[in-house]
Amino acid sequence: MTPSTTSLLTDLYELTMTQAYLAHNMTGEAVFEFFVRKLPTRRNFFMAAGLEQVLSFLEQFHFSEGDLAWLEERGRFPPETLIAFRAMRFTGDVHAMPEGTVCFPHEPILRITAPLPQAQLVETRVMNLLNFQTMVASKACRCILAASGKPLIDFGLRRSHGAEAGLLAARASYLAGFAGTSNVLAGAQFAIPTYGTMAHSFVQAHRDETTAFLHIAQSQPHHVVLLIDTYDTEAAAERVVMLAPELKRQGIAIHGVRLDSGDLGAHARKVRHILDRGGLEETTILASGNLDEERIEALVTSGAPIDRFAVGTAMTTSADAPYLDCAYKLQEYAGRPCRKRSEGKATWPGRKQVYRRLGPDGRLAQDTITVEGDTLPGRPLLRQVMEGGRRLAPSPSILEIRDRARLALSELPDTLGQLDQAEPYEVRISGALERLAQQADRYT
Amino acid sequence: MTPSTTSLLTDLYELTMTQAYLAHNMTGEAVFEFFVRKLPTRRNFFMAAGLEQVLSFLEQFHFSEGDLAWLEERGRFPPETLIAFRAMRFTGDVHAMPEGTVCFPHEPILRITAPLPQAQLVETRVMNLLNFQTMVASKACRCILAASGKPLIDFGLRRSHGAEAGLLAARASYLAGFAGTSNVLAGAQFAIPTYGTMAHSFVQAHRDETTAFLHIAQSQPHHVVLLIDTYDTEAAAERVVMLAPELKRQGIAIHGVRLDSGDLGAHARKVRHILDRGGLEETTILASGNLDEERIEALVTSGAPIDRFAVGTAMTTSADAPYLDCAYKLQEYAGRPCRKRSEGKATWPGRKQVYRRLGPDGRLAQDTITVEGDTLPGRPLLRQVMEGGRRLAPSPSILEIRDRARLALSELPDTLGQLDQAEPYEVRISGALERLAQQADRYT
Repeated sequence: MTPSTTSLLTDLYELTMTQAYLAHNMTGEAVFEFFVRKLPTRRNFFMAAGLEQVLSFLEQFHFSEGDLAWLEERGRFPPETLIAFRAMRFTGDVHAMPEGTVCFPHEPILRITAPLPQAQLVETRVMNLLNFQTMVASKACRCILAASGKPLIDFGLRRSHGAEAGLLAARASYLAGFAGTSNVLAGAQFAIPTYGTMAHSFVQAHRDETTAFLHIAQSQPHHVVLLIDTYDTEAAAERVVMLAPELKRQGIAIHGVRLDSGDLGAHARKVRHILDRGGLEETTILASGNLDEERIEALVTSGAPIDRFAVGTAMTTSADAPYLDCAYKLQEYAGRPCRKRSEGKATWPGRKQVYRRLGPDGRLAQDTITVEGDTLPGRPLLRQVMEGGRRLAPSPSILEIRDRARLALSELPDTLGQLDQAEPYEVRISGALERLAQQADRYT
Repeated sequence: MTPSTTSLLTDLYELTMTQAYLAHNMTGEAVFEFFVRKLPTRRNFFMAAGLEQVLSFLEQFHFSEGDLAWLEERGRFPPETLIAFRAMRFTGDVHAMPEGTVCFPHEPILRITAPLPQAQLVETRVMNLLNFQTMVASKACRCILAASGKPLIDFGLRRSHGAEAGLLAARASYLAGFAGTSNVLAGAQFAIPTYGTMAHSFVQAHRDETTAFLHIAQSQPHHVVLLIDTYDTEAAAERVVMLAPELKRQGIAIHGVRLDSGDLGAHARKVRHILDRGGLEETTILASGNLDEERIEALVTSGAPIDRFAVGTAMTTSADAPYLDCAYKLQEYAGRPCRKRSEGKATWPGRKQVYRRLGPDGRLAQDTITVEGDTLPGRPLLRQVMEGGRRLAPSPSILEIRDRARLALSELPDTLGQLDQAEPYEVRISGALERLAQQADRYT
């Protein structure tokens, strides 16, 4: 029973509502859409991510015998419900924006069309997967935009919210454009390049810093990145310079040094000077330590001689916005459009499509949300990816998703690509959708 | 290969450093401690949590054949390292604060004493587990303090950072004092009471609200909590009153109603009035919808007639402080005390103990961090829980941990129990520890 696939990884009400649907024969076709209600403060766009894990979840959806035995023991569900749970599979359709698509509030990122009990049962995990990866990919995009082309590496596993968060944050940031991750399992599962340097403890465990540098360099001669801030950054840089000839004799090049504390810009300048003066012009500088997009932008703008950045906690937890105001809402049941009208939480009904128009400069000009079937100028963003519970095509590789994400970021108008809050991008509601909403209101 | 136990769920540098330690025979005894450097803004204390999962991880620590095969394919590690990895188990000692202990910055929450390669290899996952649950338990404590005795339920799974985050957030909030969770898997794995109501989609899928209420009530007659804000909260409350006699005839009591949007305090007052006037004085009101400790406190202080609160995203993501500034630092190697002196990140060396003194009022008066072996007035907070890789005693039940947490919160001085930032609690450094730090500095 692994938490990532079991059907018990859900809110209890999904089970009790399904019981009631089944009891009253409410198994008609339901349409749910996942979307985000609004942008977090200082954000200008989202990047859709997590679809791959959602499709795997839907394909594998079932109650295991262990799940059923536990539910039976609890005595909360009648035998006929448990029998129905045992037979339950996901047989619906999925339309979605491909991963790596830039998107905006109220635009459906994913639509599920399935018999009501199925579409309801999968709600919690679908949201759990899409919320997290979309949140991380969106945060990672900001870091990428701030770094102006300098490579970024995910170092966030230790402060990620558990194992899966660390794993999927590595994936979401890589698809958005990060160069790789320190997370070995993410490397193994998703073919993401892995990076590693050394910890302060490694230096401390040795009697002196030079021996520590020598030891790690000899062990990993093709990947030498020395951490130089354990005691005194500039003194350590001098040690690196003194050690270089000996390592060179052994055929080992010092690929880089890493700074992890203090004023990273000031240290980078001094260290660059020490390295250059010592003939180590090829040795790069990697900066880490509580970095986020703001600090990266400040360092890049100031011209700090930093070649690469490692970003951890702030990115994998999306620290300034650690959740999205996302929803998975019933938009149609048995042919009848639905909308919620709760205060401050009203939604647009029906099956929707988003059309995106680019301007003459090749940048985003305007999106329009409309009803499915309506054809508008521009390109439609949602496509069908699953029919009758089966994928319509093999998943794109993570490299293909990276290409899409790179293109998507290049299409952002300059204002949206800045870290500061911009004038909101124009997302229109079509006349057809407005009319459908009025029609839905008449139903209730 | 499950992400939660595999040895590849780690930072690459743990593997490369271990390789170097093994190559240079640096397998002496290392002492690492986990602690938090500082309190997040507006926080006054932490609650330690996550030890149970750490101990399970350490007991099960090994490289699977799949892990080793993948590492071998990568070609980054020499055969002798992979042979050593294959034999690697955790054979060390663990000292820790019991889960449910209130603690403060710089106090060691957990200490690992083991051969250096082992103690290093487990770093990433140990931090990943302790950071997350300590963070969530600490946030949950604030909600509990704000609720002044009213029950709280975790509804956060959908916006938790992945599967494990949802699962362990349910655990951490329950041990801190929450009444239960909506997360069925957490109920199954940790014997946490589960709660559920109904979603707006359930109401929308029905032609009318009354039928929806009737259907869910008949399906779960012993757990009837009706969601009444889908269209018009007060109109729905009137419907509940009208429906009650019919349900009563069927032997069904309406246990509660749930409010999920709008001005919760104002709606609760109106709904309470409608219910009472309709003879439903026993029907409780559950409030949910973007709640956090501030909003709970405001609602409780204003006297809103809300009986229970469901808290989701803000608690499970610890939204105002989605990570702790935590560290796992080498404090001693081969009998030699170590400390890191990086700017702004200096640490206290050696094996440490914390003594806590209570005042005459039974509330926390002062903590002192000292070296292990030193005996001071008060009670020591760390105890040995693992020796030679084996637990010294069966784990406490989650109910025992809840009891400890309840006692710990009752010992908080009033100032620390408030939501606002208080004068920091006094944590002294003993003379013995000061002297050890000076000694450690002479080594480097």
